[in-house]
Amino acid sequence: MSNTVETQSVEALVKQFRELDQKISHINSILGLLSWDKDVMAPKKGRSIFANAIGTLSTENFKLTVSEEMGSLLEELSKPDVNATLDEVTKAIVRERKRDYDKSKSIPAELYNEFVVLTNNAGVAWAEAREKNDFSIYQPFLEKIVAMRKQFAEIVGYEGHPYNALLDDFEPGLTVDTLTPLFAQLREKSIELLNRIQASPHQPRKDIFSREFDVEKQKAFNRFLLPKLGFDMDGGRLDETVHPFAQNVNTGDVRITTRYLKDNVRSAIFGTIHEAGHGMYEQNVNPDFNGTGIVGGTSFGIHESQSRFFENTVGRSREFWNHFYGDLKEHFPAELADVELDEFYRAINAVEPSYIRVEADELTYNLHIMLRFEIEKALMAGEIEVKDLPKVWNEKMEEYLGITPPTDTLGVLQDVHWSFGGLGYFPSYSLGNLYAAQLFYKIKEEMPEFDSVIENGEIPKIKDWMKEKIHQYGKFYTPGELIVRVTGEELNADYLVKYLEEKYSEVYKL
Amino acid sequence: MSNTVETQSVEALVKQFRELDQKISHINSILGLLSWDKDVMAPKKGRSIFANAIGTLSTENFKLTVSEEMGSLLEELSKPDVNATLDEVTKAIVRERKRDYDKSKSIPAELYNEFVVLTNNAGVAWAEAREKNDFSIYQPFLEKIVAMRKQFAEIVGYEGHPYNALLDDFEPGLTVDTLTPLFAQLREKSIELLNRIQASPHQPRKDIFSREFDVEKQKAFNRFLLPKLGFDMDGGRLDETVHPFAQNVNTGDVRITTRYLKDNVRSAIFGTIHEAGHGMYEQNVNPDFNGTGIVGGTSFGIHESQSRFFENTVGRSREFWNHFYGDLKEHFPAELADVELDEFYRAINAVEPSYIRVEADELTYNLHIMLRFEIEKALMAGEIEVKDLPKVWNEKMEEYLGITPPTDTLGVLQDVHWSFGGLGYFPSYSLGNLYAAQLFYKIKEEMPEFDSVIENGEIPKIKDWMKEKIHQYGKFYTPGELIVRVTGEELNADYLVKYLEEKYSEVYKL
Repeated sequence: MSNTVETQSVEALVKQFRELDQKISHINSILGLLSWDKDVMAPKKGRSIFANAIGTLSTENFKLTVSEEMGSLLEELSKPDVNATLDEVTKAIVRERKRDYDKSKSIPAELYNEFVVLTNNAGVAWAEAREKNDFSIYQPFLEKIVAMRKQFAEIVGYEGHPYNALLDDFEPGLTVDTLTPLFAQLREKSIELLNRIQASPHQPRKDIFSREFDVEKQKAFNRFLLPKLGFDMDGGRLDETVHPFAQNVNTGDVRITTRYLKDNVRSAIFGTIHEAGHGMYEQNVNPDFNGTGIVGGTSFGIHESQSRFFENTVGRSREFWNHFYGDLKEHFPAELADVELDEFYRAINAVEPSYIRVEADELTYNLHIMLRFEIEKALMAGEIEVKDLPKVWNEKMEEYLGITPPTDTLGVLQDVHWSFGGLGYFPSYSLGNLYAAQLFYKIKEEMPEFDSVIENGEIPKIKDWMKEKIHQYGKFYTPGELIVRVTGEELNADYLVKYLEEKYSEVYKL
Repeated sequence: MSNTVETQSVEALVKQFRELDQKISHINSILGLLSWDKDVMAPKKGRSIFANAIGTLSTENFKLTVSEEMGSLLEELSKPDVNATLDEVTKAIVRERKRDYDKSKSIPAELYNEFVVLTNNAGVAWAEAREKNDFSIYQPFLEKIVAMRKQFAEIVGYEGHPYNALLDDFEPGLTVDTLTPLFAQLREKSIELLNRIQASPHQPRKDIFSREFDVEKQKAFNRFLLPKLGFDMDGGRLDETVHPFAQNVNTGDVRITTRYLKDNVRSAIFGTIHEAGHGMYEQNVNPDFNGTGIVGGTSFGIHESQSRFFENTVGRSREFWNHFYGDLKEHFPAELADVELDEFYRAINAVEPSYIRVEADELTYNLHIMLRFEIEKALMAGEIEVKDLPKVWNEKMEEYLGITPPTDTLGVLQDVHWSFGGLGYFPSYSLGNLYAAQLFYKIKEEMPEFDSVIENGEIPKIKDWMKEKIHQYGKFYTPGELIVRVTGEELNADYLVKYLEEKYSEVYKL
């Protein structure tokens, strides 16, 4: 295949570009599977050896995305007169590849390979540190990760705050300046609402979820529930990991994980619904996009809008449990013998400051995110050091949520994200809540029978709406284009504030 | 990386060669994992989509193995004066890469693609023919496969019999002239022994394995047994597939599968021990060989020697069950209530001519292989025609085993191997038995307490002997070098003949 592109017809250029894009996309699909395997299947001793093989393939793929061939093709296909003649799909692929190319071109391949090997090993160290409640095992890896992230930010370049370079990786175009007022509005309202909730005399029962729920029965219930949400079991898997996640291999192979805690039946149920939300997004992308650069969700924030919409807006609604509580009681007749539907509903919507982000309620969750946002911003600005993180973490927990984690395992070591270098990732979760609320008021407008659809257990109808509006497009539209296209307005915090106010007024009789 | 190698120092050449070798080896490791995932984990809808991604990576790797860069490097590093200066490991890698290069390079790409398409279609035709018991559906495809195999043999070149070109694919250096007398000796002795066995009044019980054994209890027993054999569970996995296999990813990640049949408890036990034999070979290769072309077993025959040694020589021995029968009875107290240890031991060593190779006992198994060997040899020499295979097959079954398959499905259509072009593969199975017996008498010489080691359940000590003598070397030695090095003599049939005579004299009181 020739690197000389100038003399070719547009048709020939497109053919060459689409072939190169396909090769990269195929390798990305493979790398997705390898990442899943590492977390779910690989035996202990093989992981660090295999990290080298993953490093080799990542590096090869990285080289393709920043190759001279890719550069020349993108240059030609981005010229306005040429670009205008392209079909819409190719145009979107060019846009996505160009974004990758521009970001990555400046990172030397050896540095990138070093980063891949580092993060693979950091994942192993994180797991051990977490298990042993010993931050010092993880610290040197995290220090290197932060140092390399800073180095990358300087190389790639940014305007304003260095953290902007990272935010843009997860939500194209997002900046500290945009995020700060959205979070400020949400934070102010959340704390005000939290105070009213804590003062309410109508507190939910707290004893329900401190009981033991047999893990095998939990597995049975989750396997019963998953397909009823609209997740296609012939095009996916459900496995177990310490930290649940969703991984797409292609639109016919989407793998989600959950975890079962015998003393916390909620954890697996809402974890499964959450990951199913991610998974259904990936399963319902236009299958023609397989093997192209626009397969998969368009941003982390939009992805989280899907997981959170299904987990919280649908899964924690009164109507959802009007339908499914009977099934749950069938699985746990003894454990739930003395629990009425209304008590169960209010208990799963209980608001209480807690240590673990993934176990947090819908309201305080965003406060966990803001804590991480502040820490990441400060790390990138060099205002704090990695070695001080356990202390900083605990101080901020006290400040935002009024509680202090008794161990680092319940504190700074709880999340996997930093171990794979994912600084800038956390804000996506709260963005997801913001998008989800905005979509919620839109779907209620277009589907007035929304509540009864849930109550009848017809969740796949809601999935179909999301497929039509969001899923099918993959990365064809940018997140900014998509939210305006679907809801008619840009992202704002009004809907989430409204949603939280309405929901908790009902639950807590405020 | 430059393709110009002539002007470089040997040191620089070696560095370039080792880097290229590592890249190919890493991708091979990944392709191994992907193949495992396809058979064990991938959801239905994703498989055909993902086949395209696997195809892309396989093609890229094939291109690297036959690249101009590889060709130039091998040419330089194979020059006697240069080769003499190389370290022993690099020398072995050069030998292995050159073997691949010479074999792959000579087949024109179009011809190879034609063969791939043909074998894909042949696989479908074979499955249909087998299901419908109609050889004529498969015949035209098999005719083309044989014709193309002959064509490849002519292109690649061979000395003596054209079948030698195929044998060499699976057992480097093996020829018809070597194999024919070995098999002749083994066949004569096996048939003679079979006649005596069938005439013996001391026949084993046949009712034990037509009982139902709970599958969950079978799983528990296999998971109990596997680590006791010396298979490292921190460096491997045990999963389930319809067709059991072992797949190495690296020396710290070796994945084996088994299958559980409720009406055949033997199937899983001996299947697991067999695959554990393959798996322990891969786990115990020198870990420094990871990421090089000499990681993994040195030939199909030596690999089979390990699986068969553990399955039959160890796993079907009286001493093995002296140790483990109590454990087995604990798992199946009701099913085995009326079965004494001696009855069990003799039942798992029952000899009976049967139609299906994979279900055959240790003695008659080799007769199934010789039948296939004779047919493949004659096909390659043009002495018989594909259309006559059902007739030839049944005649040979009668001649060797004294039975005639009632249908072609139970005869010539039973094996998948020819449909993917794998002529030359079958002899590996009996080579495995020949090697295993030769190793058996050597280990008994060097470890006089061999029987009591098994009886004490110290199977890992036997694994350690194999590690020291065979496993650690990977492909560093060729199979021919290895067997002489370990046993002091070239492969011969005397030991297997002796082993079978001794074993069945005891079991059948001959």
